[in-house]
Amino acid sequence: MTTYTAPLKDMQFLLHDVLEVTSSDVPGYSDLDAGFTSAVLDEAAKLAQDVLAPLNAVGDQEGCKLENGIVRTPTGFKAAFDQMREGGWTALDCDPEYGGQGLPYLMSSAVGEVFVSANMAFNMYQGLTHGAYSAIHAHGTAEQKAKYLPKMVTCEWTGTMNLTEPHCGTDLGMMRTKAEPQADGSYLITGQKIFISAGDHDMADNIIHLVLAKAPGGGEGTKGISLFIVPKFLVNDDGTPGARNAVSVGKVEEKMGIHGNATCVLNYDGAKGWLLGDLHKGMRAMFTMMNEARLGVGLQGYAVAEAAYQNSLAYAKDRLQGRAVTGAENPKGPADPLIVHPDIRRNLMDQKSFVEGARALTFWGASLIDRAHHGDAAADGLIGLLTPVIKGFQTDKGFDMAVQAQQIWGGHGYIEEQGMSQFVRDARIAQIYEGANGVQALDLVGRKLAADGGKHVMAFFELIKAECKAHDGDDRMKAFTEPLKTASKQLQAAGMFFMQNGMKNPNAALSGSYDFMHLMGHVCLGLMWTRMAKAAYLALDAGGGDMGFLETKIATGRYYMARQLPACAMHLARIESGADPVMALAAEAF
Amino acid sequence: MTTYTAPLKDMQFLLHDVLEVTSSDVPGYSDLDAGFTSAVLDEAAKLAQDVLAPLNAVGDQEGCKLENGIVRTPTGFKAAFDQMREGGWTALDCDPEYGGQGLPYLMSSAVGEVFVSANMAFNMYQGLTHGAYSAIHAHGTAEQKAKYLPKMVTCEWTGTMNLTEPHCGTDLGMMRTKAEPQADGSYLITGQKIFISAGDHDMADNIIHLVLAKAPGGGEGTKGISLFIVPKFLVNDDGTPGARNAVSVGKVEEKMGIHGNATCVLNYDGAKGWLLGDLHKGMRAMFTMMNEARLGVGLQGYAVAEAAYQNSLAYAKDRLQGRAVTGAENPKGPADPLIVHPDIRRNLMDQKSFVEGARALTFWGASLIDRAHHGDAAADGLIGLLTPVIKGFQTDKGFDMAVQAQQIWGGHGYIEEQGMSQFVRDARIAQIYEGANGVQALDLVGRKLAADGGKHVMAFFELIKAECKAHDGDDRMKAFTEPLKTASKQLQAAGMFFMQNGMKNPNAALSGSYDFMHLMGHVCLGLMWTRMAKAAYLALDAGGGDMGFLETKIATGRYYMARQLPACAMHLARIESGADPVMALAAEAF
Repeated sequence: MTTYTAPLKDMQFLLHDVLEVTSSDVPGYSDLDAGFTSAVLDEAAKLAQDVLAPLNAVGDQEGCKLENGIVRTPTGFKAAFDQMREGGWTALDCDPEYGGQGLPYLMSSAVGEVFVSANMAFNMYQGLTHGAYSAIHAHGTAEQKAKYLPKMVTCEWTGTMNLTEPHCGTDLGMMRTKAEPQADGSYLITGQKIFISAGDHDMADNIIHLVLAKAPGGGEGTKGISLFIVPKFLVNDDGTPGARNAVSVGKVEEKMGIHGNATCVLNYDGAKGWLLGDLHKGMRAMFTMMNEARLGVGLQGYAVAEAAYQNSLAYAKDRLQGRAVTGAENPKGPADPLIVHPDIRRNLMDQKSFVEGARALTFWGASLIDRAHHGDAAADGLIGLLTPVIKGFQTDKGFDMAVQAQQIWGGHGYIEEQGMSQFVRDARIAQIYEGANGVQALDLVGRKLAADGGKHVMAFFELIKAECKAHDGDDRMKAFTEPLKTASKQLQAAGMFFMQNGMKNPNAALSGSYDFMHLMGHVCLGLMWTRMAKAAYLALDAGGGDMGFLETKIATGRYYMARQLPACAMHLARIESGADPVMALAAEAF
Repeated sequence: MTTYTAPLKDMQFLLHDVLEVTSSDVPGYSDLDAGFTSAVLDEAAKLAQDVLAPLNAVGDQEGCKLENGIVRTPTGFKAAFDQMREGGWTALDCDPEYGGQGLPYLMSSAVGEVFVSANMAFNMYQGLTHGAYSAIHAHGTAEQKAKYLPKMVTCEWTGTMNLTEPHCGTDLGMMRTKAEPQADGSYLITGQKIFISAGDHDMADNIIHLVLAKAPGGGEGTKGISLFIVPKFLVNDDGTPGARNAVSVGKVEEKMGIHGNATCVLNYDGAKGWLLGDLHKGMRAMFTMMNEARLGVGLQGYAVAEAAYQNSLAYAKDRLQGRAVTGAENPKGPADPLIVHPDIRRNLMDQKSFVEGARALTFWGASLIDRAHHGDAAADGLIGLLTPVIKGFQTDKGFDMAVQAQQIWGGHGYIEEQGMSQFVRDARIAQIYEGANGVQALDLVGRKLAADGGKHVMAFFELIKAECKAHDGDDRMKAFTEPLKTASKQLQAAGMFFMQNGMKNPNAALSGSYDFMHLMGHVCLGLMWTRMAKAAYLALDAGGGDMGFLETKIATGRYYMARQLPACAMHLARIESGADPVMALAAEAF
């Protein structure tokens, strides 16, 4: 059995020492004083630790079952979902006009991390609902918003996103699901959608499916795609769920992980739907939510790694095996704890320095989204640039770290009842869904770098330069600023290589896209560690803080800079080897 | 459903063009002409492709079940095991005196790869038997050999290795299982052993457990440990299985993967056992088989990756999604196949260049074992040095490559029925068992580097120097020799860092042990690719060979040198950062 304790001290440090939320100019942030954020996070931690975490293994073992057309969630999920609803946790950053609490996205991200760490599969039911809520909130008519949003804010009704079909995932232009317009303004939706997370279940009174489909007259490819609201139960005039719509569950998939979430094949057989947003502009409507959805998946990457880390650390402290090479540290015991061994330390420090760095990047990203929500175009551009990095890099590394956590348990980590395998199996999906990580790299190099004339990536480099400059007189910071400068130069060199070679041969850029995503991920975490170190030094200088915590923070950051940033040179070397090694073979030669 | 085709052409290339077996001076190799090896491998391929591979998913889905004290293997396993036995496949490199075929270990490795790729969990039943066979062959009395070996060569009786107990795996000094000497010269064995692969099953008439236990008078720690033969059924004087011994199955573990193999808790309640080898020298007896056992696990690392690669390649050629950035390559179809995309190519080339390089390293390692078996001390020292690299590096990369193969399948790769998840889950155990990879790194840096005054690592560097020198006049080889020289210098620099710092502070060496293992792994594969490229150029120059195969081989090698060897500088930088970042925190500070 694994356990989980919310990292509240680290979250408070990020909110108040690093992001300095109360003195920030983001609307709403001035209310986030330490007492308030602590109260919110404490309550979230209780729900996560006491209710959600104990259900994590239950969800994995029982999975979701399709019985007579109805999907049954694992034992205890429904009661836990009720508790989540009743605590108002589904409404945190929702619009007060529809019953939301109007808190910043940053706060809902922090709370989200805690819930995901405790039980990733469970939290997806509300996560998907929030995505659908956002789409209706952004693109719905006043009537649609009034009809659906209040119930979705409370998760009395949940939501889904229907994009993928059996023959197309990334390439949605090949979509076959059809929408036929009816005289009453509605549409009849026909087609099959697959991989629909939270696609059906027994925990809500209704499920609001958002479905991409082709309506007549839109032309070829993605241009012809529109977005539709297709409720599981048609909604009566009084707002109650009425007749069953013509959408049914074809199958619940048997997956490698996230067994607690029902991944469904949904069959639409002339189901009644209503256009959401503009006709034939469905892809655009979807894309407006993409940053948040992808940031949410990037959060899953490190949140699962956090839970795995905690359990590997506990094992490393508890399990007695071998003796420290520098002399016994537990001489009265039969052996020393694993944590004395340098290679176990290396493993733990890899995990710890990644998770804390990724948390900082995600919180910063969430604050950029809050700025963007309030019309800050620069923040919007910057988070657009960072999103594929946060999603791709953090889910790759999050998975790797879950694997490393499992490794510390040795053979016991391979046994399912110990729970370490579940972290690995669950974390794996985050590299795949919401745009597979190769697609994130393509988005980054093929679109985001050049977006708005390269303005956002230039701003990113300026920001790093300014950060380094700000610490110029502080010798303690050299262990951070020097590696960061080097890594930033390597990232710039990679960008330059793409500019010089990508025009002649786009493959020269795209062959290096994955390495660029990882190189930029390390630069981002290097920047975060520089900021965190500075904040920790300032707090230490001021006195009165938790000295142990602050010194540990600095040492953890030094590890990241010394041990992880050397990966940047490797990624640059790979990028600069260009397209030739990658594209040398004809497809038939493989 | 996944498929598998044995890579016979590549195996023949390695045996005949690279290792040039028939002109080698290893006893027995002169018989291995191309016709013979092709005949053997063809037949192995048929069994693997037609019988073992179709049972791979069956084994994963059904697993092994403990019913009334008896372990039931998955449907079809018993019949397949009979076929394997009847074909003589269990006896390939066994001693003809006991019914074996006396082929070199190299041949049984090549055949082993084919079987492991097809069905890793299934092949473990014979793999463990072979390990137990080797132990009895090396350390048994004439009587013991006559009693057990003929039945184990045919796998009528299978074998197991019993080391781990609940509270100790790596640190066997804490072992609690006791052996009490009896008047008749036998011992009564009492204790619990866990993680016993192939620990019990319904496919053999008897199971010969080799059990480490403490007999009186041996002193503390590993010094007190002896090795015992404990048959499941006591053997009658006429050689038939008789009364049931006091060993029972406590549990069959539910694992992340290799479900087709029964991983058992075995309870010894005064079971009758007989000493194998010298009293209190059990650890030494175990260690004599270690190189082979670990080489076998290193083989699993790339063999599973080979199977995963084949299925990711098939999908990349078949699945239509998106268009090549340089213009449609399948203009009449709705989209281009995945393989046109540079990032998919990068992924496939990573896999292909690793698998072929690891196969070369493993075959070379097997040939060193053959030399060592014939008394070549230099070969014995070299394979001792290479073994932790082959085991640790190849299983880490093999797992990573299985993950990459799964990634090409996108969401479909996460669905169990497609089979890609099984490769990942199966491959994971190879990083853990037979000495977790952190222990391999410790063995490499803490023992093997300095063994015999550093003689073997010096020989390894000399060998690389000679290899590079041999190609001095050949400009085509520069793409191989230049990166290999650089990487080799980096490896030497890492060794130098350990020598200069490890004496003062052993943590300085051990903090870099894992990186050293990977750095050396890349150098080894760089060496292999240099040899393979040279062999391919020679064959091309000679004309008459399969030009497409040879040119693909060279291009694949160039990819490895250009894209993978840059990792060496990263590992060196990490190593040279020393112990400080790794050991900075007190255990309580985590």
